[in-house]
Amino acid sequence: MAKIKVLIASGISQEVADMLQDAPPEMEITFLPEGESLSDHLSDVEILYGRISEADFPFAESVQWVMQPFVGVEGSMYPAFKESAITLVNSKRLYGPQLAEHAFALLLALTRGINTQLNLMREKEWKWLPCVEVSGMTMGVLGLGGIGRAVAQRAKAFDFNVIAVDPEPMEKPDTVDELGQLDWLPEFLSRSDVLTVCCPITPETHKLLSHAEFDTLPDGSYLVNVSRGRVVDEDALIAALESGKLAGAGLDVTYTEPCPQDSPLWTFPNVILTSHTAGASQNIAKRAMELFIENMHRYVNGEPLINVVDKEKGY
Amino acid sequence: MAKIKVLIASGISQEVADMLQDAPPEMEITFLPEGESLSDHLSDVEILYGRISEADFPFAESVQWVMQPFVGVEGSMYPAFKESAITLVNSKRLYGPQLAEHAFALLLALTRGINTQLNLMREKEWKWLPCVEVSGMTMGVLGLGGIGRAVAQRAKAFDFNVIAVDPEPMEKPDTVDELGQLDWLPEFLSRSDVLTVCCPITPETHKLLSHAEFDTLPDGSYLVNVSRGRVVDEDALIAALESGKLAGAGLDVTYTEPCPQDSPLWTFPNVILTSHTAGASQNIAKRAMELFIENMHRYVNGEPLINVVDKEKGY
Repeated sequence: MAKIKVLIASGISQEVADMLQDAPPEMEITFLPEGESLSDHLSDVEILYGRISEADFPFAESVQWVMQPFVGVEGSMYPAFKESAITLVNSKRLYGPQLAEHAFALLLALTRGINTQLNLMREKEWKWLPCVEVSGMTMGVLGLGGIGRAVAQRAKAFDFNVIAVDPEPMEKPDTVDELGQLDWLPEFLSRSDVLTVCCPITPETHKLLSHAEFDTLPDGSYLVNVSRGRVVDEDALIAALESGKLAGAGLDVTYTEPCPQDSPLWTFPNVILTSHTAGASQNIAKRAMELFIENMHRYVNGEPLINVVDKEKGY
Repeated sequence: MAKIKVLIASGISQEVADMLQDAPPEMEITFLPEGESLSDHLSDVEILYGRISEADFPFAESVQWVMQPFVGVEGSMYPAFKESAITLVNSKRLYGPQLAEHAFALLLALTRGINTQLNLMREKEWKWLPCVEVSGMTMGVLGLGGIGRAVAQRAKAFDFNVIAVDPEPMEKPDTVDELGQLDWLPEFLSRSDVLTVCCPITPETHKLLSHAEFDTLPDGSYLVNVSRGRVVDEDALIAALESGKLAGAGLDVTYTEPCPQDSPLWTFPNVILTSHTAGASQNIAKRAMELFIENMHRYVNGEPLINVVDKEKGY
């Protein structure tokens, strides 16, 4: 019986490649040689670990499903792929821990003055500074998927009042005090001392946070964004920083990446930019491969795959 | 009937002073005028909000109890005060939230590369960097008092395995997975991927963490200290940083404060020093005054005071 051809087209370490020994015996595992073009190696491939670009799509005739070892799917939402029968699996939930850790690293660096203290350290200056305690504040979690839930879990333990907005009807997790849908956004924003952006970029979330939304936030609130920069209207963000409406912003993502050299975001003393590193983790490659292997077993057993993306919704 | 004379000898804002309207009517509240000497105002004072230095002690004849709006009591442990009948109340537990927030600010700044990213930011350089995920690691909490419990609560939500050592027998909180006394210290240290110092300075904890203790830590572990610098033998700490045994250290406190200009701690790229600011919070002055007022009511009602310091133990 012919084996099922699997192509690994995303760079993985030997340690992660070794995990593939647990793949079902029905699979014939192949690797895209470094530097070679995906389109030259897609023939007969049924399962792909990686991503199909629009240019490669015409060569993906035999592909049944693709797993991408990252979360955001906007790069695959071109019409040919959206309309195709290819199933897309992403890595949602697997990135929750490190993205939530990064969100708190950004927030707490601002509230505890780590950025200012690092500047003082260069001068060997020991100087007491006021800091902001977040305990008792309200954390607004925008998007209660894998990232948002991981953020909420930590926020609750920091004694935040945790509120969340998500477009999907869902059961409220215990770590969230109040949950609403998009019609609740204005009130949600008006109460968010810290607003953490955890949602995907879709036509609905593009520039969802603009002038009116920043105006609605409490004075002196904080913005943290560890998901997608294009959810934020950056002109509105910059205005909110200039006016003092925002006490600070911690941004792992920007509207355009890399953040343009002429962006004022580089120079606000109360902005911390990290370079889309929030997903970095020594554990993520293994977690993604575990899910891929689990899905291969499900595929041969005729069971539904985990983390299938709804192409209509875009997440 | 003569009123009970209360002296407020620690600087407080008008907003906090206004809270004293809720003090018992039996109290005559007075304030130490700015710039004047405490010893000139201690006559007939029964309750003091502040601290009695060794020089002022002979004038404190009528003082029954003192509340200090901070935690560490080592400054009051001179023999005359220790042997006196004056009850000392401190602010333990009130500092838990902000100290735990600061501990996580220091730790996550190291694991998420915030210090490096802030350096890159000055050059407007967008550069992806590897980061360390703490989820699944073991957090060792040294000292399970008010600070340690606040740290443990947050560590649990970050999916740490939380272990703790405390000299006191006590019930294990749910946020701690394993709790031991001092004889468990070697094993505790050998498992602590992150070691967070949360204990007071006493003769027993002075340089408790020295060469042997750092050697016992797992390779690549992190040290966070938000309580007292003198718990750490700083030569041993520096050796552990130089050898790479420690992946990083986040220190709000140092053996000598301010940290001396010639200390190598200022210049390690993987050390973050903050200037004993972990206690800073917009809420702490009010929390301390709430406790003071509560204790005044308890005093007139003949009830035991909250947060009485055990002078023998030194905390």
